[in-house]
Amino acid sequence: MIPPRLSFVTLGARDLRRLRAFYGAWGWQELPGSDEDFAQYSLGSTRFALYRLDLLREEAAPTLALPEAGSWSGVTLAVNVESPEEVDAAYASALAAGAGAVAAPVQRTWGGRSGYVSDPEGHRWEIAYLPGLLSP
Amino acid sequence: MIPPRLSFVTLGARDLRRLRAFYGAWGWQELPGSDEDFAQYSLGSTRFALYRLDLLREEAAPTLALPEAGSWSGVTLAVNVESPEEVDAAYASALAAGAGAVAAPVQRTWGGRSGYVSDPEGHRWEIAYLPGLLSP
Repeated sequence: MIPPRLSFVTLGARDLRRLRAFYGAWGWQELPGSDEDFAQYSLGSTRFALYRLDLLREEAAPTLALPEAGSWSGVTLAVNVESPEEVDAAYASALAAGAGAVAAPVQRTWGGRSGYVSDPEGHRWEIAYLPGLLSP
Repeated sequence: MIPPRLSFVTLGARDLRRLRAFYGAWGWQELPGSDEDFAQYSLGSTRFALYRLDLLREEAAPTLALPEAGSWSGVTLAVNVESPEEVDAAYASALAAGAGAVAAPVQRTWGGRSGYVSDPEGHRWEIAYLPGLLSP
């Protein structure tokens, strides 16, 4: 039995200075404990972290190559908002703050609405509305 | 301003049946809304999801190739536990439940202890103790 808990999500950063500036432009504030190789943010019960990619690889994948720059990780992250209208507004805000446009918001078969943007290193963020997720 | 919120972390699954069996063996229970292409779990304020890799790519990275099987994503996830001893116990439990051994637990320069395991598709989980994170 492993506790059902997600304490950290860490993205390996090729250019940490650029990436932390990007998330700063989203209005996200770094927690104490951040340093020149590491930045962390509180996102509810999970911490979101950026850590130098080469250092993260030494710990987490010492026998494997670095991911190729510009490739897709196979992972997505999501920020949910409280209405379909807020999806479009947050999508526009994300682009205005430097995100890449991946897929404009559309209605989804699962009953909500979402679009995708990318950070400067290609990590995908879905901006989504799922009825009932945030408000009961 | 994007809300500082992590609603979902979704891993693209090459073999969803195998991956959901793996997380089931960790004792994680699927939420309603899971189906043959999608499994979701509540991990605190974030949902952890598995979704068919080809379907996730259509949404999130339609112009990019699928990640190469066996490659490292550049992302890590962490489950924190309440003591250094629990790191070693959870690490052993994870292996006993089918995880791959990546790096046995060691003391870390940041003051805690952690090791890394992999799921059947190579996603990395750190099992960690960070003083003060879980208990004030």
